[in-house]
Order: sequence, then C-alpha cells, then structure tokens
Amino acid sequence: MSNTQKRLEAVKQQLSPEQEYQDAVDPIRSMNEERAKAAFDIRSLTYLLDGGEKNTFLKEKIMQELERDPLFKMDDIFDLTTSEVRERTMAKFRSMLHHLQNEPVDQFKKRMEIVSLVDPGFWTRFGVHYGLFVGALQSNATPGQLGYWFERGALSLNNFVGCFAMTELGHGSNVPGLETTATFDEASDQFIIHTPTLTATKWWIGGAAHSATHAAVFAQLIVKERRYGTKCFVVPLRDPKTYNLLPGVNIGDIGKKMGRDGIDNGWIQFTHVRIPRGYMLQKHTKVSRTGQVKEPKLQQLTYGALLQGRVTMVADSGHVSKKALSIAIRYAAVRRQFAPSGANGIETKLLDYPIHQRRLMPLLAQTFAMLFTGTEMTEMYNSMMARLDGAREGDQDLDEVMEMLKETHSTSAGLKAFCTWNCLSTIEACRQSCGGHGYSAYTGLASMYQDFAVQCTWEGDNTILTLQLGRYLISSYREALNGKKLSPGVGYLNNLNKLIGKRCNAKALEDVLDLDTISEGWQVVCAHVVKNAATEFEECLKRGLNADDAYEQCSQARLYAAKLHSFSYLFNRFADAVKKTTGDLHVILRKICLLYGLYTIEENAGAFLQFEYFTPAQIEFVRASVNNLCKEVREQAIPLVDSFNLTDYIINSPLGRKDGNVYVHYFEQVKRSNPQSEHPYFDRLIKPLIQRSTEENDYEEELAGLEDDDEDEE
Amino acid sequence: MSNTQKRLEAVKQQLSPEQEYQDAVDPIRSMNEERAKAAFDIRSLTYLLDGGEKNTFLKEKIMQELERDPLFKMDDIFDLTTSEVRERTMAKFRSMLHHLQNEPVDQFKKRMEIVSLVDPGFWTRFGVHYGLFVGALQSNATPGQLGYWFERGALSLNNFVGCFAMTELGHGSNVPGLETTATFDEASDQFIIHTPTLTATKWWIGGAAHSATHAAVFAQLIVKERRYGTKCFVVPLRDPKTYNLLPGVNIGDIGKKMGRDGIDNGWIQFTHVRIPRGYMLQKHTKVSRTGQVKEPKLQQLTYGALLQGRVTMVADSGHVSKKALSIAIRYAAVRRQFAPSGANGIETKLLDYPIHQRRLMPLLAQTFAMLFTGTEMTEMYNSMMARLDGAREGDQDLDEVMEMLKETHSTSAGLKAFCTWNCLSTIEACRQSCGGHGYSAYTGLASMYQDFAVQCTWEGDNTILTLQLGRYLISSYREALNGKKLSPGVGYLNNLNKLIGKRCNAKALEDVLDLDTISEGWQVVCAHVVKNAATEFEECLKRGLNADDAYEQCSQARLYAAKLHSFSYLFNRFADAVKKTTGDLHVILRKICLLYGLYTIEENAGAFLQFEYFTPAQIEFVRASVNNLCKEVREQAIPLVDSFNLTDYIINSPLGRKDGNVYVHYFEQVKRSNPQSEHPYFDRLIKPLIQRSTEENDYEEELAGLEDDDEDEE
Repeated sequence: MSNTQKRLEAVKQQLSPEQEYQDAVDPIRSMNEERAKAAFDIRSLTYLLDGGEKNTFLKEKIMQELERDPLFKMDDIFDLTTSEVRERTMAKFRSMLHHLQNEPVDQFKKRMEIVSLVDPGFWTRFGVHYGLFVGALQSNATPGQLGYWFERGALSLNNFVGCFAMTELGHGSNVPGLETTATFDEASDQFIIHTPTLTATKWWIGGAAHSATHAAVFAQLIVKERRYGTKCFVVPLRDPKTYNLLPGVNIGDIGKKMGRDGIDNGWIQFTHVRIPRGYMLQKHTKVSRTGQVKEPKLQQLTYGALLQGRVTMVADSGHVSKKALSIAIRYAAVRRQFAPSGANGIETKLLDYPIHQRRLMPLLAQTFAMLFTGTEMTEMYNSMMARLDGAREGDQDLDEVMEMLKETHSTSAGLKAFCTWNCLSTIEACRQSCGGHGYSAYTGLASMYQDFAVQCTWEGDNTILTLQLGRYLISSYREALNGKKLSPGVGYLNNLNKLIGKRCNAKALEDVLDLDTISEGWQVVCAHVVKNAATEFEECLKRGLNADDAYEQCSQARLYAAKLHSFSYLFNRFADAVKKTTGDLHVILRKICLLYGLYTIEENAGAFLQFEYFTPAQIEFVRASVNNLCKEVREQAIPLVDSFNLTDYIINSPLGRKDGNVYVHYFEQVKRSNPQSEHPYFDRLIKPLIQRSTEENDYEEELAGLEDDDEDEE
Repeated sequence: MSNTQKRLEAVKQQLSPEQEYQDAVDPIRSMNEERAKAAFDIRSLTYLLDGGEKNTFLKEKIMQELERDPLFKMDDIFDLTTSEVRERTMAKFRSMLHHLQNEPVDQFKKRMEIVSLVDPGFWTRFGVHYGLFVGALQSNATPGQLGYWFERGALSLNNFVGCFAMTELGHGSNVPGLETTATFDEASDQFIIHTPTLTATKWWIGGAAHSATHAAVFAQLIVKERRYGTKCFVVPLRDPKTYNLLPGVNIGDIGKKMGRDGIDNGWIQFTHVRIPRGYMLQKHTKVSRTGQVKEPKLQQLTYGALLQGRVTMVADSGHVSKKALSIAIRYAAVRRQFAPSGANGIETKLLDYPIHQRRLMPLLAQTFAMLFTGTEMTEMYNSMMARLDGAREGDQDLDEVMEMLKETHSTSAGLKAFCTWNCLSTIEACRQSCGGHGYSAYTGLASMYQDFAVQCTWEGDNTILTLQLGRYLISSYREALNGKKLSPGVGYLNNLNKLIGKRCNAKALEDVLDLDTISEGWQVVCAHVVKNAATEFEECLKRGLNADDAYEQCSQARLYAAKLHSFSYLFNRFADAVKKTTGDLHVILRKICLLYGLYTIEENAGAFLQFEYFTPAQIEFVRASVNNLCKEVREQAIPLVDSFNLTDYIINSPLGRKDGNVYVHYFEQVKRSNPQSEHPYFDRLIKPLIQRSTEENDYEEELAGLEDDDEDEE
C-alpha cells in the first residue's frame, strides 16, 4: 500500500456513511482511478500519433495561443444567432492573418488543422479564400497571371477576398454540365460572364454573401459559338472600397444551414458581366486575342491539386473522432447509473457496462485506424505530387506517374467517403451514449454532428466517390487478368489465383486472433467482391450495354467492393503502423488493432461467410473475442483518450473535461449561458391564456337573437 | 396517342432546340411523368394507410385548419432565434386549447399526431402538460385527488400549467435511484421536498423554464426515516397570477438544444419546499395522517400507462419517415445530373440511377413496415389496456393479463428502439441523397434530424430498451423449454425443435422470392440468436454470477437477439397486412414487402449464413433480387409517396413540393428568408482588415531605440 493510499484509507475511516458514499462516486476521483490504470507511456503515444515530439510541442503552443486569443472565445458559441456567429467569424480573420504573415507555411497548416477542430465554420470561411480561391489560381493560372493576382492582394487579403464559384443551383457533382457561360467577345477582347437560367445560379458559394471581392468562376468557355467545356475565370464581384456590388452582379445570402453558420454562403447571378480576356486563367487552355483556342493534351496532370481536400479529410475524420470520443469516454468514466446488489448503493460507471464498452471501444479502435491511415494517405499524396509537379508531356516515366495519380485519386475517393461516414456515425454514437445530456447544445456533440455532416457531401459526394473507387477496382481487376503489375493498394488483385477460394487455415479458434490472418481474410474477401463486381460489369457489356451504362448497372456491386476494399485498407495501414512499434505501446496498439480487425469482420460477417473464409464457428468466436477485447481496451480507455492530447478549450464540452468534474462544469455552463431573468413573455402570452374567467370556458350555447325552437312549441 | 399527347407533340414540333431541351428537363413535366405511372389507385392506398376513408377526410380537414391558422405559420421557422421560437410556440397554446375544448378526444389525438409532424417542438411543449402531467395524475392520483386537481384547472389550463419533473442531472434511466427527497413531517402534516445535491437537480424538465405553475415531482418518499422508493408529488412552482417563483423553488433555463428549441426545458432545485400531505398522489402507496405507509401489492398493474409513449413512437417513426421520403423521392424525380451519351445532353433523373434507387427504395419499404406495425402495436396496446384497466388483485385471469402486459412491454421496447433508430437514419439518408441542398435549413431535413434525434433517448434510452427485450426473449426461451405456451409475438420459440438447424427448402433460387420463405427464415435465425443468448446467459450463471450480472455479461448477445427479433416482427406485421389486400394494391404492396424482407436479409446476411438457413448462392441471389426490386418499386415511387397524402404545408420543404417545381420554390424561399440588404458589418469588420496600407504589411525590423550591433562593428 502506497503512502497516498494509506492516507486515503485513514481519511476514509473518519467519514460518515454519506460522506463515504459521496467520496466513492466523486467524479474527479473516478477519473483519477482511470488515469492511474495506464499500462503504457501516454506521452509516447501522443508523439507517435502527432508524428514526433516536435509536432506535439507545436500543437500545444498553438492550442495555448488559440485559447488565449480573445477573438477565439468559444464557450458562448452555442447561443449566437446566425448573424452574430457570422460577425464573430469575420473578426477572427485578423488573428489568422497575423499568423499567416509571421509563421512558416507548415506551421500555419498545423494551425489550420487545429482551428478546424475548434471552429469548423471559421475554418471553412478562411479556407475558402486560402484553400479554394488561391488554390484555383495556383492550379489554373499561368505564372504571369499568378503574379498579377498576388500583386493585386490575392494572397495578403489586401483589398481582396476571394471565393470559389463552382456549384450551381442545378449542378453539383456534374461539373462539366455547369450552365454559366463565358463567351469571348473578340471586338472588345473581353469575356461575357452570364447566368442563362435559374438553375445556372451559382449556389452555396462560401464567402459570397458578405466576404468576397472576387470569385473564381467556373463557366462554359464559348468562342466563336463553339463550346470548349468548363474553365476558370476571375470575376470581380464588389468594389473593395465600398463593398457595393459591381454592375451585372446579383448576390444574395443562402441563409441558415444545418451547421457551420459562420460561413456566409451565397448565391450569385451574372448578367452579361464583362471581364478582360486575361481574367480567364490560362495555364492549360489558352484563348488568343483573335479567338484561337489551344487546349492541353494531358488535362489529367492538373487533377492532383483537386485531391488535396479529400486527402486532408481522411486525417480530419480521425481528428474529429478523437474529439467526440474524448467527450463520450471521459463522461462514461465518471457517469454512474444503477447499483448492483451488494454494492452499498454505489452505482456502476457506464464504462464498466459491457454494452457501453461495445458502443465506444470499436469506435476508439476505428479512430486509430483513421489516424494512421490519414498519415499514410498524406505521405502518398505528397510523394505523388512531387512526381507530378515535375511531370511534362512526353516524359519517359509518365505512365508510372499517371498510375500513381490514378491510385491516389481512387484510394482517396474511397477513404474520404468511408472515413467521413465513419466519423459522422462516431459523433452520433458518442452523442447518444451520453444519454439525454448528449442532446444539450452545451455538451458539444450536437453541433459537432451538424458541422461535420457536410463533409459527406462536399469535395465529392460520398456515394459518387465510392463508385469511382469501385470503377477503379473493376478496371484494376481486368488489368490484373491481363498480367499487369498493379499499384500496392490493389496489389492483392495480382494474386487472384491464391486468394479466390482460400479458407482460413487457423487450426485452433484462437489462431484467428492474429493480425496477418485478419489481413489475409480481408484480401480474400476483397478479391471475391471485386471479382463479382467485375463479372457483373462484363455481363452487362455482353448484354450490349456501353461501358458507362454497364458501370451504372453494377453500381451496387461497385459500392460494396469499394466499401470492403476501404475497410481492408484501413485495417492494413493500422496493422503496418502497429508493426513498427515496440514495448508497452506495441502491446496496447496491437490489442486495439485486433479489436478493429475483428469488429469489422463481425460487421461484415456476411461476406466472410459467403466466401467461406471463416466458418460459422469462427465467426461466433470472432463475436466473443470482440466482447473480450472491448473489455481489455476499456481498461486503458482514459489513458488512450488522454494520449489524444486535446485541451479542455479544444474539446469545449463540460462532459469531456479532463478533471472529470462534469456536473459542476455542466451546471456552470448552463447557468452562465442562460442567466435567470424576469419572465420574458408572461404578461403578453401566458397571462391571457391561463387567467380566463370560468364563464369564458363554458361555451354556453348562445342563440344570438335567434328564437329557440323549443320555446315555439310551448 | 391521347389528345393531350397529340397536343404536346404538336407544340414540341414548333420548339427551338433550346426550348425543347428546357421542356424535356422541366421539373413539373418530370413530376407529371412519374405521377402518370401509377399502377394502383393512390386514394385506396391512402385509405388503407390511414385506417379508412373517414380518417383520411379527418386528417385532410385538420391539415387544412393548421395551414390556415396564422399561429401555425411554419415557413419562417428556420430563421427564428431560440427566444423567438419559444414565444411562437407558446402562442400556439391558444389555438390548440380551442380545439381541445371543442372536439372529441379521438379527433384531438389525430390533430396532435399531425401537429407532431408540423412542429415537433410545440407538440412536446403542449404534450408535457397534456400527456405527461395529466398522465401522471391519471396514473397516480386517487379519484378524489384527480377531481381536486381538475377543479383547480389542471385539465383546462385555468391558472394552471403542469410539467413532469422526473429526470435529474445525475439520474435518467435509473428512476429508483433519483435523489430528490420527500420527507413526511408529521407535526405539520406536510411533505418537505428537497434537492440534497447538485446531481439531484431536476434536469431537462420540459415547460419548467417558462411555462409551468405546477410540477409532478418524482422523489424518494421518506417517512419516519425509512425510505419507500420513488413516488409522485404535485409541487406548486410559481404563483399563477404573477409567475413569480414560490419560496424554496429555484428554476433556470436549460437553454439551447440540438433541436425542439420551442420547448422551454428547465432545471429545478427545491430547498425545503413544504406541500400538504394530500399533494402526494396516493392511488397506489398511501401515507396516513400518523405516518402509516400502505404499499400496493401489484405495482406492475400501474405500468401500462407508461407504455403509451413508446407505442406511439413506433407509428410516429413511420410518419416522420413518410415526410422525409416525400422530400427525397420527389426531389430525385426531378433532379437531373449527368447526361449519358446519346441523350442529347438531357441529364438522367436521380431516381433512374440504380444506386439512388438502392439508397431510397429500401427505406420506402421499411416505412411501410413501420406504418403497418405501428397500427398493429397500437391495437395490441389498446386491447391490453382494456384488460388491464379492469384488472384487480386476485382476479382469475390475472396471469393472462400480466402475460399480455409483459409482451406489450417488451415488444414495444424493442420496436421503439429500432423504429426510432430506423427513422433517424432514414432522415439522414434522405438528407444526404439531396446532395448539397440537403444541408440547407430550408429544405427541412436538417431540422427534421435535429428534432427527431431525441426520440432515441427519451421515453427509455434505446440501448436499454433493446436489452429489456433481449431479457424477455431469454426468459421466454427458458419458459418454452419448460413447456410453457408463449404469447404470439414469441410463439416461434415454442417450435425450437423444428426451427433450429432448419435450412431453406427452396429448390430453385427464385423460390426465395416468397413472403412465407422469408418469414420462416427470420424465425429460424431468431430462434438461433435467442438460443445463443440464452446459452451465454446460462453459462454465466454456471460460472457463479447472479442473474443480474449474468444478464449484463451477455448484453451484446441480448442486443443482437432483440435486433433480429424486431426486424422479423416488422417484416411479419407488414406481410400480414399485405395478405389482407387484393388486386392492384396487393401487387404493389407484395412487391414492397418482398423488397423489405430481402433487404433486411441482405443487411443481416451474416446471421442467415452463420445459421445456414441460406446458402452463399442464395444470398448472392438475394442481393441481385434487391437490385431488381428497387428498380421495380422505383417505377411507382411517386404514386407511393403521393399516397402518404401529406400537403405541401406539412412537408414544408421546397424540395418536397408536390408540383415538382423545386428550384423556383427553393430560390423564392431563400430570397424571402434572406432579403438583400446593406452590408451588415463592412465598415466595422472588413474595411479595417482589407484596406491596409502597404507599409503596414512589411513588418520592417524596428530597433525601437536600440542601437544596431552591426553599426558597432563599423
């Protein structure tokens, strides 16, 4: 017995039964008990997750700066009206601009990553300019044009705020189908930007309603009555001196959304707006003074930049899940409900209920999978971009670069879709696991859901993205049959002969508890579903459908293949990361990885049984093992959440407070946000309703001057 | 060719290509095309769903009254602040009170059902008084007490508004563990109501913040220092003349929530508040003048009334799903995206994409299952209550009545949980299926999600309810083994010998497409999972656990059994209803029921394969059949949605408008809600940010009076 324990025991003996009870259920004490269970070095795990000690220190520095920045006050955010939150969001620009101008780009990127956890609405509004508008310039402008717009203040926000006007009321996913026109007028050497129909109205344009002076407008290039497809044009919207709309520009506010109300999404209609020819960004397609159009041969080389967003969203799904789970797991460590017999009325922590472990531990494991995969995905993207940036038409290794691009494109498509879906359901599961308190705005999970929900739609609608991956899997399968060596992510399709029909060769049931076995199982199942999708596709071709129609017809099979492929991918990236660790960290991470693998097998038991990789008895064993692993991981749940290293300011929820003192913080927050006051509408609305005289209620039949029939009969 | 078609053709020949294109993609025309496909009498289906022609007329009457009631204006609801929506909600009391006093109870109930679709926040706030407070009186008061409170205005809202104070900050699901005390003071013949700790603060109390004069308070009865458990007390909160808080009562506002902000949830702390002894509701437990406590023998007989809420929620899940699907399916019928080659640029309706059919048609089928099950569940509840109301201790048929109560209790627990979960995911799937526009507040699905989300938690947390059903299934299984004849809902457990190990005896794959085969398959699978759960439970007992601990340990198995049992139950109620129909209605409903059955099998393929009811080849055939059925049901999707018969006012979403003119309605709504105005904060926030002088940006190194080192070296 340690000295501390001895002292506690001594104190305990002097307590009254009531004090003893209060002491036993004290949330701070409950939290400390959990924290003391750590069987690994929390700080080491933080470094691992952050990608090294230096990154951790940098994150901590930034978290402290944000917390102390009065512009970033966040604890009253839940009660602001849409207008108030819009103004609050605008005010933050000042702070971020300061950092942008005074710190290296990499550090600023890390700042943005943290800001996205603190205030997703601001992150979007700021990101519309720096990510989307400046990104559009970088992808589409010639070096000269880039210099021109940067000189005009496009980077430094000097008399300039940009927005990104792609989506229209009638067109989202189908970018080539946009209706806005940019018609070249040779006489004046200008383009005429025009919104021909209601459905061509630019819609959802972040920053358009109140922030932007200029827009990167995507419109159909028309020269000499010929259409050349969708290109990008810089169109001035407002006079930066007055913010009055320029002639021909009509802008309105899109108004209230499910979340992220800090961003001022707007609609824009252009009516014959003239811009100089040079405002068309001509890095790829060029229009000369006399209307000669020169189109690029390898348009694909320009796609790389468009993937940045979805690559980021894989890691972000992990980060947001960390925040949601910090709240749900910390609350579950101190919330008690129902006392078992013989416990002297001391209720059980939610975290000790097997069913609660089942609700949260697999999601915790999935979060680790998304975090490790996010890191891997970012590295893949960076090395692809490094190759792509230097690539030119005619290069010897162009085929290889194009393969890398294709793999990054489809892998990130699938991962963006399934990770954002995973994250959204994690938030909702965490919210529901907090019971009624999860429905309060102040506990943070409601707005987290509302803010995050859009991630399933923007930067590529999730369903469409899964189909893109499905298409890639089918074509990779067909290439593999033709003997082509595939990229690593789909490399298993080169081993079809070994995989199709393979069964698990575990002798004892326990042998299933093995990362390599799980990995093999996933490969077998994926090989089968990809094969089935490809077969369905080929049958459609045989029935006479063209390739596009055939792909549509087998879209459910594509989605299914993409789903299993993505889960397999996540598991394998997690397992790779675990294999690189040692010691106590390895022990806990291997356990979590095993839980993740077996949980996803259980969730997709139909596939593992249909393709006979596992037997019914093995699947039953998997179910039981998930129960056991949930229980084991639960023991380390608080240390694991602590390793996420998010400060109370970032978590911004009384239920997720590190000290565990949830009820005190929650009550204080509710009282501070809703000060007691005079009744706001008693005299006007309630008094006339409830203080009626009795007669009023009787609704006596009144004849209103009409003679009563009965009286006539008298 | 009909005359109309001829006329259309004639008009078409005079159109320019551009006009012809606009005509082809015109949303109104697209909607009319869909409506013309009806292969059954829409009106007959409406009557069937509503439970007869009379009900349909009544609903239509109520929908019209609500739409024309200025207090029920709903199209501006999305932009109101929390305070505004609270006042708007309060104002509606006047209108509802009028109807309550002037129409039969059954008609008023139907009105409330429709109101819950129009304005869930108001429905809750009004329901807190009429459902919860008055319900608490009816369940717990003696006839004399009921008369007393009704005379005091508790029914007619005369100087009286009630609220229901059960939940505390620290206790939700565990009602017996509530901390608030009601101590009998014999000297004064009063109870002293007291909140002893912070966690004992009454929390989430609907109507407490601003509406209620009285509360039905659940507190620990303490008489002569002995505790008798949680009882119900009427405690005055405010002076109805002034709405000032009474001495010892402290009330605050819970503030912002995820949804339903129209309801003024509050917290309440009682500090030694004295009430007369008679304010304890003494239908069951009685406390005499001298502090003698008489407890009832059969407390269970009082539980029936508590089930009303969850029974209603089964049908409500169906109703809310109808509303969500009306929006998503109507939008998908007119929204077009991507033109296939050879279509002259005419884009494809979302509804024609196989993947979009896959997203929505199974949910449409599920909605029918919930609607028919809701009707059945309500009938089961009513007949149970009819028996229960007359039941007295010592009755001969008491055992039978208690069996009915148990079955209704557990069936409604499971169905409440899975139907509210189903409905919540249906809303979210519908929202995502509308792409970006689903994120706008004005399209209605966002707030539908936010309002509905609480249904998964209140009236019994869903997870806890599923475990209750799981417990019932295990005990039924054990009773069946002992030869007891079970209630109809679990009757299949009396046929264990026939079911365990049974395989599907379909000879051809096509034979799987049969309602009876599906029904048998579900019984087999349910028998297996219930058996597994019971076996796990018994193994826990053998290991020496007491029954409660054993149930906790096998909670995942209980949840799994409850899930499959509930899906089987939903399918069987749907199939029963289909069997009662004839003609065209039968044809379409059988198809939808088949889709539902096969879809749920596909979703739970793991179980059907694990217990070897279906072979892998049959499961693959099930997948393909779901694709085909989605396509077939899609043909009737608009007529089916029309049969739900919800008016544009009720649907309150431009995307769900019956005429299909979605873009016009949507743009008008957005403009009306966000009138163009002067820039709200340009001068204050934007101008100082973007109109900086160039020097300001240079951040030149200033020495501020310090001598430069370099100069020293000169």
